[in-house]
Amino acid sequence: MTLTSIAEDDDQDIEATTSTTIYVCITCRRAGDPEDGVRPGLLLARATARAAEGTGVTVRQVRCLANCTRALSAAVRCDGAWTYVFGGLDADKDAGALIEGARLLARAEDGVMPWRGRPEILKRGLIARVPPIDFEEESE
Amino acid sequence: MTLTSIAEDDDQDIEATTSTTIYVCITCRRAGDPEDGVRPGLLLARATARAAEGTGVTVRQVRCLANCTRALSAAVRCDGAWTYVFGGLDADKDAGALIEGARLLARAEDGVMPWRGRPEILKRGLIARVPPIDFEEESE
Repeated sequence: MTLTSIAEDDDQDIEATTSTTIYVCITCRRAGDPEDGVRPGLLLARATARAAEGTGVTVRQVRCLANCTRALSAAVRCDGAWTYVFGGLDADKDAGALIEGARLLARAEDGVMPWRGRPEILKRGLIARVPPIDFEEESE
Repeated sequence: MTLTSIAEDDDQDIEATTSTTIYVCITCRRAGDPEDGVRPGLLLARATARAAEGTGVTVRQVRCLANCTRALSAAVRCDGAWTYVFGGLDADKDAGALIEGARLLARAEDGVMPWRGRPEILKRGLIARVPPIDFEEESE
């Protein structure tokens, strides 16, 4: 399926036919958090899984996105789109923002998560993005 | 091709049959660099392309990996492996390290770029990593 053919479907079909996944780092903790006890990253993963129910977005727990200095961390990927890594997330507040970002990315015809309408934490918490597999080189 | 079948080949075959790509951000500049003139990121992309000759590693120029605060930036991806984003790169010095990192990743049977033997700049410059598409969830 190409981005063009996705674009010809309506929103509902897009979300059903594209595979959108949020990877939440369950080893993440903030500076000063105890090493034992439940990791805040795990709490964020659980909250995101709850928030994803019925949305078609998949949530996967992952051990370390290597963004430890700017935890909590999550990555959002979607077939044919750029993959986004976010940091500075809050387990109590940001699950919904991750779902909203994933849905924005799934609907984006150009594979880029739009800045406009993106939840604020996914703006200031943007760590990096990686091109889709079929990415064509950009000229100088 | 699975990671298992890759592991059964010898090193040369691995590098020939896996698709290993380095994405170099050509818009990157360091704090204080002029906005006009050749971007250091472009210089790094060119140096990395030269260093890749004959290695089987593909180098792609990309406009912005969104790691602007910790430029220069590049990402290394390989089929079936984690994708790695690096920052703090130097256009004059680090092209070879990116190639070495890409080759380490291509040879890694577990899809993880080994820490041991990894060029120093790919240790201290690690920004984030993202799981492969076929990643299976890790348990709590």
